[in-house]
Amino acid sequence: MSQTYEKVALIGLGLIASSMFWAMKRGGLAGEVRGYARSGETRDIAREIGLCDVVCDSAAEAVKDADLVVLCVPVGAMGAVAQEIAPHLKAGATVSDVGSVKKAVIDAVGPHLPENVHFIPAHPLAGTEHSGPRAGFAELFDNRYTLLVPADGTPLDAVRTLRDLWEGIGAKVEEMDAEHHDLVLGVTSHAPHLIAYTMVGVADDLRRVTDSEVIKYSAAGFRDFTRIAASDPTMWRDVFLNNKDATLEILGRFTEELFALQRAIRTGDGDMLHAYFTRTRAIRRGIIEAGQDTDAPDFGRVKK
Amino acid sequence: MSQTYEKVALIGLGLIASSMFWAMKRGGLAGEVRGYARSGETRDIAREIGLCDVVCDSAAEAVKDADLVVLCVPVGAMGAVAQEIAPHLKAGATVSDVGSVKKAVIDAVGPHLPENVHFIPAHPLAGTEHSGPRAGFAELFDNRYTLLVPADGTPLDAVRTLRDLWEGIGAKVEEMDAEHHDLVLGVTSHAPHLIAYTMVGVADDLRRVTDSEVIKYSAAGFRDFTRIAASDPTMWRDVFLNNKDATLEILGRFTEELFALQRAIRTGDGDMLHAYFTRTRAIRRGIIEAGQDTDAPDFGRVKK
Repeated sequence: MSQTYEKVALIGLGLIASSMFWAMKRGGLAGEVRGYARSGETRDIAREIGLCDVVCDSAAEAVKDADLVVLCVPVGAMGAVAQEIAPHLKAGATVSDVGSVKKAVIDAVGPHLPENVHFIPAHPLAGTEHSGPRAGFAELFDNRYTLLVPADGTPLDAVRTLRDLWEGIGAKVEEMDAEHHDLVLGVTSHAPHLIAYTMVGVADDLRRVTDSEVIKYSAAGFRDFTRIAASDPTMWRDVFLNNKDATLEILGRFTEELFALQRAIRTGDGDMLHAYFTRTRAIRRGIIEAGQDTDAPDFGRVKK
Repeated sequence: MSQTYEKVALIGLGLIASSMFWAMKRGGLAGEVRGYARSGETRDIAREIGLCDVVCDSAAEAVKDADLVVLCVPVGAMGAVAQEIAPHLKAGATVSDVGSVKKAVIDAVGPHLPENVHFIPAHPLAGTEHSGPRAGFAELFDNRYTLLVPADGTPLDAVRTLRDLWEGIGAKVEEMDAEHHDLVLGVTSHAPHLIAYTMVGVADDLRRVTDSEVIKYSAAGFRDFTRIAASDPTMWRDVFLNNKDATLEILGRFTEELFALQRAIRTGDGDMLHAYFTRTRAIRRGIIEAGQDTDAPDFGRVKK
């Protein structure tokens, strides 16, 4: 691996930005990485743990002279950050982001950016239940996908350099359009998160009845849900509000299916249940064969 | 640890029974363990891998002389197995099971058993997505709960010996009544499993539209669901059919909550979403503090 950008600026210093930084250092992918976070406490932590070569006290200072600026803030904050940094961007710079939705980010960020920079939205499909500047680790993106969503007319060399960076970070990179991205992520990530949040909320209601037993005896199913439902509240609020149409469409289909299974339980239709569960088990096998997970009980998750 | 029963019989040789066997051997907890499975193929595999000291060709042969008989078959098969073994049970023996529901098992098994044996239903809260005789490993139950559901009037020493066995196997043991068990497990395990099955089924429909991308780009949320939804179809069919009331009640509450969150997304009520997600995150912290999971990215799952 070799250097892809001379100067990189990370705006927002949470799980994704900090993991990008450690991965860029691991691979020698950037000359200098500057970071900025709105919270003074986050900037202090970043300085304490050596997160970024330089931690700046303003976004303007961080992006000045940067060849690549990556917006690593919640989706709902992208527009305001873009407006703030726009006057300070270097001509020819690439601006990217790591937001979990793409249409809404393009609508919020695009209008603020000057003509002489390249906006290439991106979404790394990786995360943990932890957030904040201390949560990052260099291996987070290894062997995971990062999706690039370049607009028509973006210069190919600008896309190629960003792709080189993400591949150097460890990711597999693919391109797709923003609308399709939002639908695919709606089903693989956004709807499952909302469903996990809901189930954990229901259990919390019941817990009041049963004296913390729900937590004490939480078996495999519920434990997995709680991990998903522990994800950053601000990030996920913004995801749902900004991928509203796809999320609501998928939840509508989910409710239909759930009602069909409930009816099978109520009427004692064991054949329907068995056939359904056999089909979903086969899907799991497909995921393992596609290399998106392993057969091992720890699911191949990266150790810290 | 020391021997708890001289002779143990395991009826059914899947994930739970095979893990019990390896854990009993690890701890020197039983003199001789006999096993029986209805499938000849399963019995052949058991003999090949040394699963059980003796693999019998009939349930009657396995339970004869046994001080403890553990029914490790799907919930829907418990009644027939109890009827089959009843005439061959030794006076004073303990009969237990490992079923995920307890009221239905008690109703199905209890009437078949003679007066001179002790029936102490049990449920180890542990599992993986894998099933069958090769799936077991000695550490499966380490630091997990096993719930005992003894009927009023069961001799205390019989309960104490079964408790000693499970503690020797590595589990934390608690007692509760059958109805309460079925409610608690409904919310922590049964409803989450049905929801995961449903979400994976919805994705499969969508996959036909998007050419396997749903699998390829399956991010954390969906991957966790697919693991849950890969659990044994027969076992789970029987769980839902035999814990119908609790499951349907919890799913009813789940649907109410999901509709409330959908409405918040549709109307753009970010405050409601943020407050909800903050609450569910706190529940996760409670689970970690209760020692039912770890903070690490692999969730403390046991490695094979």
